[in-house]
Formats: sequence, structure tokens, C-alpha cells
Amino acid sequence: MSDDRYERGAEIVARVYKDFGDSFLAEVAAAAPDLSRYIREFAFGDIYSRPGLEPRQREMIIISSLATIGYAAHELKAHIHGALNVGVTREEIVEILIQVAPYAGFPAAINGLHAAKEVFSEWDKISS
Amino acid sequence: MSDDRYERGAEIVARVYKDFGDSFLAEVAAAAPDLSRYIREFAFGDIYSRPGLEPRQREMIIISSLATIGYAAHELKAHIHGALNVGVTREEIVEILIQVAPYAGFPAAINGLHAAKEVFSEWDKISS
Amino acid sequence: MSDDRYERGAEIVARVYKDFGDSFLAEVAAAAPDLSRYIREFAFGDIYSRPGLEPRQREMIIISSLATIGYAAHELKAHIHGALNVGVTREEIVEILIQVAPYAGFPAAINGLHAAKEVFSEWDKISS
Amino acid sequence: MSDDRYERGAEIVARVYKDFGDSFLAEVAAAAPDLSRYIREFAFGDIYSRPGLEPRQREMIIISSLATIGYAAHELKAHIHGALNVGVTREEIVEILIQVAPYAGFPAAINGLHAAKEVFSEWDKISS
Amino acid sequence: MSDDRYERGAEIVARVYKDFGDSFLAEVAAAAPDLSRYIREFAFGDIYSRPGLEPRQREMIIISSLATIGYAAHELKAHIHGALNVGVTREEIVEILIQVAPYAGFPAAINGLHAAKEVFSEWDKISS
Amino acid sequence: MSDDRYERGAEIVARVYKDFGDSFLAEVAAAAPDLSRYIREFAFGDIYSRPGLEPRQREMIIISSLATIGYAAHELKAHIHGALNVGVTREEIVEILIQVAPYAGFPAAINGLHAAKEVFSEWDKISS
Repeated sequence: MSDDRYERGAEIVARVYKDFGDSFLAEVAAAAPDLSRYIREFAFGDIYSRPGLEPRQREMIIISSLATIGYAAHELKAHIHGALNVGVTREEIVEILIQVAPYAGFPAAINGLHAAKEVFSEWDKISS
Repeated sequence: MSDDRYERGAEIVARVYKDFGDSFLAEVAAAAPDLSRYIREFAFGDIYSRPGLEPRQREMIIISSLATIGYAAHELKAHIHGALNVGVTREEIVEILIQVAPYAGFPAAINGLHAAKEVFSEWDKISS
Repeated sequence: MSDDRYERGAEIVARVYKDFGDSFLAEVAAAAPDLSRYIREFAFGDIYSRPGLEPRQREMIIISSLATIGYAAHELKAHIHGALNVGVTREEIVEILIQVAPYAGFPAAINGLHAAKEVFSEWDKISS
Repeated sequence: MSDDRYERGAEIVARVYKDFGDSFLAEVAAAAPDLSRYIREFAFGDIYSRPGLEPRQREMIIISSLATIGYAAHELKAHIHGALNVGVTREEIVEILIQVAPYAGFPAAINGLHAAKEVFSEWDKISS
Repeated sequence: MSDDRYERGAEIVARVYKDFGDSFLAEVAAAAPDLSRYIREFAFGDIYSRPGLEPRQREMIIISSLATIGYAAHELKAHIHGALNVGVTREEIVEILIQVAPYAGFPAAINGLHAAKEVFSEWDKISS
Repeated sequence: MSDDRYERGAEIVARVYKDFGDSFLAEVAAAAPDLSRYIREFAFGDIYSRPGLEPRQREMIIISSLATIGYAAHELKAHIHGALNVGVTREEIVEILIQVAPYAGFPAAINGLHAAKEVFSEWDKISS
């Protein structure tokens, strides 16, 4: 059963975040293998894989939460990669960050925007 | 032009949040009329009314942001009312709060859930 | 396997937080049964039950984290109950909240202290 | 020397926050006498009493910080009392809370505004 | 009317933050032109330009809010530039960051201080 | 008396954080000598030196608080150095950061873990 959760989460991480997700979790695992396992099992195997919302919707919700947190640039970049991979457009990602501004404040929205700019620019390099 | 922004925002507040939105902003206006005006003009007239995301999506994003903030129970209740009014289901609202837990922590998710419970119970009373 | 995690977590919740823990999670379950299950499985079955730190140490760490968050009064009360149940003294709990002040600020420390006062007073009523 | 810090801080608390400050710190002292002493010695005897900024300016800065924190309603009320006592006007207090909105978000500003409304209404009762 | 807000805000950004403000907003505009427009229109055209507080006071309040947020180094640097430009002294800026410490905690105050050191050192280079 | 607090705090900073603590506070002192003095006097001379908790326990509590804050990488590194110096093991430090995850969220825990990895790697270089 526990293996199922891990497999289910690992499959999502690999499919949605591709190389970025695996390298993100490899860095976590370098200091705390169990924490990277919990992220696959709990954050993805338990939560993200639930029915009720589609991956596109989940990435929108997570980007909103991470932008609001304000100091989570690295996770935010991972989820912006993921959002693009599951079909959220660049315009929608920018729109989420604009929508967050009145609640989380401009500094949180701007930090989010800088993360988005970096990811968009990485994608431009790959596709060119 | 400025009147357009106000009218556009006020129309959204009245339509999406109904009585709850107007009484929420009336309380704000009792101490700071300009702040309640800015909320209508900027948060709704400028931001919420933008194309690019539907009201359903905006409410999901805002609920995620407000739950992550952790101390915004009153605004969160207003937006849960609004989410229900624009067609987000109770199951989806609970799902958003569950999705936020790994990023914002259980206390933020649970505070959000208690706000949701209160709103759901108010709706049950009205409809019964 | 998954049942093991739930059983292990539920056993800890019942033993450490006694009635307060179960009523806390029953309130969560009233709106989101899955979230209360994840708290038992993940927060307690996976994390809290790990070797490497004793329950006394875990409660000290959690009280520090919850006090720093600032808006988590309800969880903080649950963990102050738990801390007392596993042998953390009232003096140590107050000392943790004082130690947190230079980092999280006086308002966070004072919010924590008010939660502690409430719990201490509940214990005085029970034991008198 | 240490007594000087305490005396200096206690004198400020009594003069600036009057009854509200002493009852605020008496509540803190009920659970942690040392914490209420540190607030008088450090926050007021060391910091607030420094030259370089006037009390009016310090209260404006503190109100901005406490409103930004979002969950510090009780301290915020104490400092709004203090601000009024040292000559900050109601209009200026509301203006600070409006100025904070673009950075800390509307929910933080609105929480601050509700604290201000409560204090203003207490003052109206006293003076009527 | 809307143009008035933009013009009024743009004039303030140019006058108060000089090159730093325009390059800050140009970076925002590179990913989200509308967000940089809202900052000029709302944060400056609507809010900052209000009567009731002078620019010197507004910069003090904003520095307090941004330092309290803790993760807003870039905005904080912009507003420290602005504060110096409208006549807040280096000593007063340091004093604000010290005054914030008991409420927002030493880490927030120290992050703010490092931003201030960077700006002061940029000014020393220009004037030497 | 005040000198006692300073001496007591300075002795703790030198003994617990060694070179890292002094260079950390020297950087603070470069812009605000008084703030670095308050840290020695208040955070260490008043608070850390109190009886009731051992240095090992205080470092655990402080690491939990700083990890929860999320944006305090520099202080966190100082306290991870200190924790190792007073006998907290690497395994315990990682365990604290894992224990914090359900309350403060994965991003805060992961930011903390990256700080820990940096410190562990600095220690490996010194001892090799």
C-alpha cells in the first residue's frame, strides 16, 4: 500500500515536472532522503492524485499558495514548469500572479513574477 | 473612466458575493470609505474583471491565497460565499483547502476549513 | 501498510492529546474527513512516530513552530495539552514561548502565551 | 542599570498606553512575568526610548509593522491607543492602514482597520 | 481619469525612486506590463499621492511594512532609495529597522538592515 | 548591570557560534552597532542564558522557529552551526526540519534543509 502511494507520487512528479522535479527532489534527498520520499508519497501520492480537481486546476492553486508564501522561489519555479507541462498557459500563470496581488501584496506577486520570468526564459532556450 | 472601474467592481461584488460582500465592504467603509472604494475599484474593477481567467478560477486562486495567509478568516468566508455563487462546489472548495496543506501547512488548511464549515452551515440554514 | 500508518498515528493522537486531540480532529473531519485522516497518517503516523527525537522534544519543536506561525491558536492549544501529557512542564512551555520572542517577535510569543494560559487554566479546573 | 531600563520602559508604557498598556502587560505577566518585564525593558526601555525618532513616528512605524503581521490585533489596539495619546490623529492612523494595503495585502489592512474601529469607538464612549 | 492616475503615479515613481524605480518597474513590465501599470496607478497614483501623510512619513511606513514582510529585499531597496531621496536620513532608516525588531523579530530587522547597507554603499559610490 | 548582560551574551555568542556568530554580528554592526549589541544583550544575555532549558534544547527550538519563518537563511545557518557546537547531531537537525514540515509547510522545511546542507558541507571541509 505504501509503495502504491510512492509509485503514484513518483509517477506524477516525473510526468508533470519532468527533469526539474527529479532534480529538485534529488537536492532534497541529498540531505534528507525521507523528506523527498514524503513529498512524493504525501504531497503527490496522497493529495495531488486525488480526484475532484484536474492537474491544471491543482497547479493554479499551488502557484497561488506558493506566490502568497513569498519566500518559496524554488518550489514556485518547479510548479510553474509543471503548470506549463499540464497545459496552463504563460498568460494564465501571469494572470494568477496578478490575481494574488490584492491579497498577498505586490511584493509577493512580484517575487512570483520573477520566478515565472526565469522559467519562461528557460523554456525559450530549450525550444529555440 | 474611474467611475467605470468603480461601477465594474461594484457590479461584481454585488453579483458574486451578494449580501455578504456588501455588508463586508460596509464594515470597511464605516472606518475607511476610501479603502472600501479601492477594493471595488482595484481588486474587482481592475483585477478580478480582467479576461484570461473565469470567475470560478479566480475564486479558486483567491481561496488558495487567503487560506495560505492564515489569518484572513473574514475575507475567506466572503470568497467562499462567492465561490459557491459562481458555481464552485463544496467538494471543490474542500479540495482546494486540502491541496494547500502541504505548502501552507495544516494549521492554515484547518483555519480555512473552519471558515468553509461556517459558510456551508449558513447556506444550509438559508436553503432549509 | 497504509492502515499501519493510520493506526500508528491514531494511537499517538489518542495517547498524547487525549480528548482534546480527538475532538480537534472530529471538528476537522466534520468538513473534511480525508484531512483528519491525513493528519493522523502523515503528521503522526509518518512524522511524529519517527525515531530520532522523543515525544517531549517533538512537542517543544512543534510549539515553537506553531507559536512562530502566530495565527494557529487552536493547534497550539492541542500541542500544549500534548506537551503536558508527555512530561513537558508548564515552566518549560513558557520558556519555549519566551525563547521564540527574539526571532518571531513579541506578538507571536504573546499569542502563544495566551494559548498556554488557557490550557493551564483548563488543567487547573480538571485537577481541582 | 537594568533597573534604569525597566523604569524607563515602564514610564513610557504608563504614559503612552495608559490603562490599556498596563492591563495588556498584566495579562502577559499572569502567565510569564519575565516576558512582561522584557517588553518594558527591551521594547520600551531600550528601543522605543532611543533618540532619533519621536513617539509619533515610532507609533506610526509600529502600527505599520503590526498591521503587516496580520494576526496581532491585541498589540495593534494597544498601539492605536498609544498613537492617539501621543498625537497621531484618527485620520493619520487610517491613512497608515491604507498605505500598508499594497504591500501587506487588503486582508492585513482590513484586520488593522477593524482594530482601529474598536479603539475609536472605545474613545468615543469615554469622551461622551 | 485613469490616465490621470497613471500619470500621477508615474510622476511619483520617477521623482521619488529615480532610476531605481523605473528599472524596478521595467523588470516587472518585462513579464507583466499590466502589473507594472497597476503599481503606478494604484500603489502610487491612488494611495501614495493621497493627502494626509507626507512622502517622508509614507516611506517610513512602507519601510516598516516591507521589513516586516521579511522576503521583500528588492522592494525594500527601492523604498530605501526613495526614502533618502525625500529626505529621510540614513540614521532614521536604521532607526526604523531597529524599531521593527521587537515586533517582526530580529531576522526581519537584519534582512532589512542588509538591504539598507547595500543602498547606502551604492550612494557612497555615486557621490564619491 | 547592563555590561553584565552584554558580557554574558557575548560569551555565549563566542562559545556557541564561534567564528560564524562573530562574523554574523560584525556584518550587522557594520550598519547598526546598536542592533548587534541588542542581539548580544537581549537575545543572548537576557533570553538564551536563562535557566530552565539547556543550550541543546534552545537551539532545537530556535531552529524550529527560524525554519518556520522561511526567509531567515542566514540566521538559520548561524544556529545550525551553534546546534552542532552544543551537541545536537546532524540527524537531529534534519529531524527537526522534517518535524516542522506538517505545520510550516514543505517549502519552509526545504529552505531549512538547504541551509543545513550548506553548514554540514562547511563542517566537512574543515574537518577533512
